[in-house]
Amino acid sequence: MVGSYKILGVSGSPRKGNTEILLDEALKSAAKQTDIVTEKVHLRKMDIHYCIGCFKCSEENDNDFACQIHRDSMDEIHVQLRECHGLILATPVYFGQVTAQMKTFMDRTEPLLRYAKGPWRCTLRNKIGGAIAVGGNRNGGQETTNQGIHHFFFIHDMIVVGAGSDERPGCYLGVGATTHPRSGRFRDAVKEDELGLYAARILGKRVAEVVQWNERKENQR
Amino acid sequence: MVGSYKILGVSGSPRKGNTEILLDEALKSAAKQTDIVTEKVHLRKMDIHYCIGCFKCSEENDNDFACQIHRDSMDEIHVQLRECHGLILATPVYFGQVTAQMKTFMDRTEPLLRYAKGPWRCTLRNKIGGAIAVGGNRNGGQETTNQGIHHFFFIHDMIVVGAGSDERPGCYLGVGATTHPRSGRFRDAVKEDELGLYAARILGKRVAEVVQWNERKENQR
Amino acid sequence: MVGSYKILGVSGSPRKGNTEILLDEALKSAAKQTDIVTEKVHLRKMDIHYCIGCFKCSEENDNDFACQIHRDSMDEIHVQLRECHGLILATPVYFGQVTAQMKTFMDRTEPLLRYAKGPWRCTLRNKIGGAIAVGGNRNGGQETTNQGIHHFFFIHDMIVVGAGSDERPGCYLGVGATTHPRSGRFRDAVKEDELGLYAARILGKRVAEVVQWNERKENQR
Amino acid sequence: MVGSYKILGVSGSPRKGNTEILLDEALKSAAKQTDIVTEKVHLRKMDIHYCIGCFKCSEENDNDFACQIHRDSMDEIHVQLRECHGLILATPVYFGQVTAQMKTFMDRTEPLLRYAKGPWRCTLRNKIGGAIAVGGNRNGGQETTNQGIHHFFFIHDMIVVGAGSDERPGCYLGVGATTHPRSGRFRDAVKEDELGLYAARILGKRVAEVVQWNERKENQR
Repeated sequence: MVGSYKILGVSGSPRKGNTEILLDEALKSAAKQTDIVTEKVHLRKMDIHYCIGCFKCSEENDNDFACQIHRDSMDEIHVQLRECHGLILATPVYFGQVTAQMKTFMDRTEPLLRYAKGPWRCTLRNKIGGAIAVGGNRNGGQETTNQGIHHFFFIHDMIVVGAGSDERPGCYLGVGATTHPRSGRFRDAVKEDELGLYAARILGKRVAEVVQWNERKENQR
Repeated sequence: MVGSYKILGVSGSPRKGNTEILLDEALKSAAKQTDIVTEKVHLRKMDIHYCIGCFKCSEENDNDFACQIHRDSMDEIHVQLRECHGLILATPVYFGQVTAQMKTFMDRTEPLLRYAKGPWRCTLRNKIGGAIAVGGNRNGGQETTNQGIHHFFFIHDMIVVGAGSDERPGCYLGVGATTHPRSGRFRDAVKEDELGLYAARILGKRVAEVVQWNERKENQR
Repeated sequence: MVGSYKILGVSGSPRKGNTEILLDEALKSAAKQTDIVTEKVHLRKMDIHYCIGCFKCSEENDNDFACQIHRDSMDEIHVQLRECHGLILATPVYFGQVTAQMKTFMDRTEPLLRYAKGPWRCTLRNKIGGAIAVGGNRNGGQETTNQGIHHFFFIHDMIVVGAGSDERPGCYLGVGATTHPRSGRFRDAVKEDELGLYAARILGKRVAEVVQWNERKENQR
Repeated sequence: MVGSYKILGVSGSPRKGNTEILLDEALKSAAKQTDIVTEKVHLRKMDIHYCIGCFKCSEENDNDFACQIHRDSMDEIHVQLRECHGLILATPVYFGQVTAQMKTFMDRTEPLLRYAKGPWRCTLRNKIGGAIAVGGNRNGGQETTNQGIHHFFFIHDMIVVGAGSDERPGCYLGVGATTHPRSGRFRDAVKEDELGLYAARILGKRVAEVVQWNERKENQR
């Protein structure tokens, strides 16, 4: 359908709750923009093997699937990544970075890079990316996690937006939310973080807006 | 003129040479794209005072100029920032970050932020940014300097692109060039860094491309 | 034995080769210092489950093991972490950060943090940490990966050293090695990276030296 | 005097207030440790020129002073850096990094690096470093600023400690304080940031402790 752009949200949390609450807030905000539909992937429900660094995905082959080693949930996720126009990665902060679950997902996007041959090459190029991080400590790695997600986006040659706004956004890089002074063990603690929820709405809207600009260009060609 | 978009390059080096060589390479590459013109600012030729954190620029006033304290080269640079559509910041790596000269320039863009009232507010919002760093050591802070520049872009609510390409780009975040194994004291040492020069051409082209997409949108309105 | 200090090296690579070569170079250099012994863990040979963020490890219990959910290779690794005096983490750069395999290991050290009750609490506090990263691109995330490893160290309240030296070290933060211009697919490509190998030797020596200072203090008490 | 170790605190704020309050809190906490004295430098009161990247400081000379170009406040500060055993850098967050004033100070420590010849070479090697950042936004660059300061420490071959503690420290990397929800324009707003003040006390104590360990070693020789 002309004019329908998809934003994919990926949650890297092993648990229901805070990360998903923020991702939902962002996606709902995105969906309020014209012609935007959203889709979600919960990595905790997926079966994804580690990338083993074999480089087979950058060799020529006639297969429909991108990874030449593992048949698992990434087969489907690769298709979702191909079909989306914007991508929001949301994760709890574990040791100053994305969770290992999210990192496993990231590593398994190797077949979509510039190094591939064939149709999966540069799958994410020019798509719009935004980052969400929620930490148990107030300044407990939200910024570095957002930068880690951005690095992933830049490696995929994506276009990156932050969570800027007219108001004070809390974190400029993306969503920097916290369950402090409660703890991440409380699954809805982030509902008390007005600043984090506000930033999630801004981020969702912003990814949607830039997806639209980008995509209008495509229609002109 | 309809269809003429400007990319501003700012060099933060106190010296002629390597940084400027890379910035020129990027701007020349940008200028090859349709309807792109480029402009350069050499901070070493400018007179710029430190921001003193007085917050006066976020109060209401009737002045044409943005900073309410210092009358210096930033008056002119603020106008250049307002008129550009893309912004490339190029700097040598000093202690893992941009030079103090570049940081002084950055700090003095405070009046262009969301916190301002009046016409200078959000001057850089939605403009396209790219980063260039050249270090005397091979892995001597190019990545962290690019991230520092990106942080500046995100705070200004800009849209950020890296130096991705179909080939192996050397550094995905932006230009990560080096004068190694020669030293930064040799003003043209970067001419031997094929990878850095290549990345500069990619970055310039990429900023130009996304400026064009972004701006076509404006013409539709 | 009085005066015998252990440095533990952990490799996060899914493959034999470059990462291990660098880690070996660092550990050999460390072992040349007085009273230093070394030990290695290869995560690719381990069976480690993801942390599921259940926070059970921070509740009181009478168990010998630290994680209350998974019985796997981390039981043994937790003991190795308790017994070491210095810790070197070595990883290939995957998407600008440590591999998912390394991140899984990191996440599973949660039971050793300040949040624990009982004997595993603050297991790594005041131990000495150093970082090794090897990337397929020249400036492809070595710095950010080193910073990611440092962040892990700081969260564990460790004391962090870089790879400084009297000569130009290539990367100050830690080892920033590369398989460029060859590719990570060549398992010994890093053998041609003189700068990376040199930095590995410096890092190993440096971790050993600071372990010794730190430990002499303990003997005085 | 045997057993008297000095910790130098450097404030990079152009204004009195929040940064100084945090630095004082850290230095007071350090001074409670045995044999520790403290000293402060306020960069806002200093006259420091930019480093011009001339590399003259790495050539042989017979001068007492380290920088061969500028006679300014750095002459005295270089001596203070030589005499200290620990170094705490405190700065407001300006655009996700240290202030330009702090960066100017940093850049002018070039003569103290490994590249120098003569007595100023490696002046800061093996000294203990800790970082303090205070931002107007909650997650507004405190982490990246701490990392920027750490990078400076690593380049000087220093030993780096964070702000870990038995309690939840707010920010593990160093002090991550904020004037939010008030603004940096209120000079004492950080007094309401219990978490930031607490972290400052931890950081000061921690730098002092590791200085003592390190220095006991020297006395053994």
